[in-house]
Amino acid sequence: MNAIPAIVAGVKRIVMINPGFKGKQNPAVLYAARKCKIKEIYSIGGPSAIAAVAYGTKKINKVNKIVGPGNAYVAAAKKEVFGDVGIEGMTAGPSEVTIVCDKFSNPEWVASDLIGQAEHDNLAQCILISKDKSLIDKVQNEIVKQLKEIPRSSIARQSLSSNGILMHISSDKKIIDVVNKIAPEHLELNVKNYNSFVPKIKSSGSVCLGKYAVMAMTDYNVGSNHILPTNGSAKYSSGVSVNEFYKRISYINLSKKGIESLGPSVITLANYEGLAGHAQSVKKRIRRK
Amino acid sequence: MNAIPAIVAGVKRIVMINPGFKGKQNPAVLYAARKCKIKEIYSIGGPSAIAAVAYGTKKINKVNKIVGPGNAYVAAAKKEVFGDVGIEGMTAGPSEVTIVCDKFSNPEWVASDLIGQAEHDNLAQCILISKDKSLIDKVQNEIVKQLKEIPRSSIARQSLSSNGILMHISSDKKIIDVVNKIAPEHLELNVKNYNSFVPKIKSSGSVCLGKYAVMAMTDYNVGSNHILPTNGSAKYSSGVSVNEFYKRISYINLSKKGIESLGPSVITLANYEGLAGHAQSVKKRIRRK
Repeated sequence: MNAIPAIVAGVKRIVMINPGFKGKQNPAVLYAARKCKIKEIYSIGGPSAIAAVAYGTKKINKVNKIVGPGNAYVAAAKKEVFGDVGIEGMTAGPSEVTIVCDKFSNPEWVASDLIGQAEHDNLAQCILISKDKSLIDKVQNEIVKQLKEIPRSSIARQSLSSNGILMHISSDKKIIDVVNKIAPEHLELNVKNYNSFVPKIKSSGSVCLGKYAVMAMTDYNVGSNHILPTNGSAKYSSGVSVNEFYKRISYINLSKKGIESLGPSVITLANYEGLAGHAQSVKKRIRRK
Repeated sequence: MNAIPAIVAGVKRIVMINPGFKGKQNPAVLYAARKCKIKEIYSIGGPSAIAAVAYGTKKINKVNKIVGPGNAYVAAAKKEVFGDVGIEGMTAGPSEVTIVCDKFSNPEWVASDLIGQAEHDNLAQCILISKDKSLIDKVQNEIVKQLKEIPRSSIARQSLSSNGILMHISSDKKIIDVVNKIAPEHLELNVKNYNSFVPKIKSSGSVCLGKYAVMAMTDYNVGSNHILPTNGSAKYSSGVSVNEFYKRISYINLSKKGIESLGPSVITLANYEGLAGHAQSVKKRIRRK
């Protein structure tokens, strides 16, 4: 998820850090890394891993930027090292979904979407919003039923009972206001008129449109990046993209005529600020020699 | 410097915080704010001002993102509130210039550029690099002479003696390596063959090309943004631009045929990860009802 935009941006050195499980990397992860031609892989994790790549060790050369999700400790460590290295401009923490439904939605499908999200971990956030009270009731019944059918039901149950919210809201306008306040990592617009919502959604990591676009698809192979802003950070940031690895440098060129034309107002402003040295460096280039 | 890219990006609420001097805003600053149509201005500064806009007070509504330079305390405060609000992805700290010169450079001009930078504050960083030893000597003599001519000479002298470096480097290739290691906020390529340098400069905030493009011009009116990465952060970030205020949201739409074609591999991957709930949410949409 991080490697592809980095490759597209032309990053020369890509380092993967992943704690693995009991010191072993998952073969599927290694396969994906190989597909991305990542050659530098360290089986390390947690805050100490962040420190290792930020400052370097005897075995690991320091990196310039650290991108990717992690638990609360990793997030805190990244914030700590920021400035010495770059990090992405958002918080990638526990996962969140907000689903908007209408009377055309299939309650069985919607319930499975919420459970799919809730099974991630205890801190996952699941929110259902609808104008249709009876649909909300049906989804709730379906959740109870389907929770019995999955192996990670205790995690999902705990997540839903502590961070699950069912909201009955009376108008599309109010729904949009609430969604923009939540600024969810994932938004599913499981409604017939999703096109009328789209231009009004200002804050969300990614938006699934229509009944077939289920969030689980975005976890794996629909192509959108899945490292997305959580915890309301979609209000000021976006998912990981090639922008994360792309730099812009400003170039300024001035001809003799250019400085003669723009220089006098710079001299005025510099003197106003009491920066005579600034004014001098411009003056010297303007006066005839 | 911040307001214009924010306006271009379509930011609806723009707040200016500026401590002013003895509680009074500088009229020139207010004039610039008026030109940018900024209506919300608070005469506050320092870490407490950062906290005020990050979390809100009785009089100030919280903002979503805080952008702009500040001293070390402001930079630390911004890092602290990051996550609750957005901040730019770089460090905008004490100012820096690196100047590359050749035998065609005018030592009087170059000396004035270094002094213009050094008069900012004690922590300003001034570096001169050249293949030409005699030019370095001439610039050094000019600095001594010109330091007597500016009002802020004691600041400039202190800055140059603690953070000023004159480097004699034998080849353009080595010069480029050193510049990329420094990753200066400002780079002046005061050399005849600046075009051969440009594609090789990987890390710098902004680059002034040729003998007339002096950094002081970029402080005021040449049009490039002047809030630039310092302290080596040009290795992983860029100056403030419209990108700082622009968000991207991914939209995902799937047809019935789409999920039938992409879904099976998602089910395989989700089951491999032990996420049966994810697999279910896809399965339910594929099976015929």
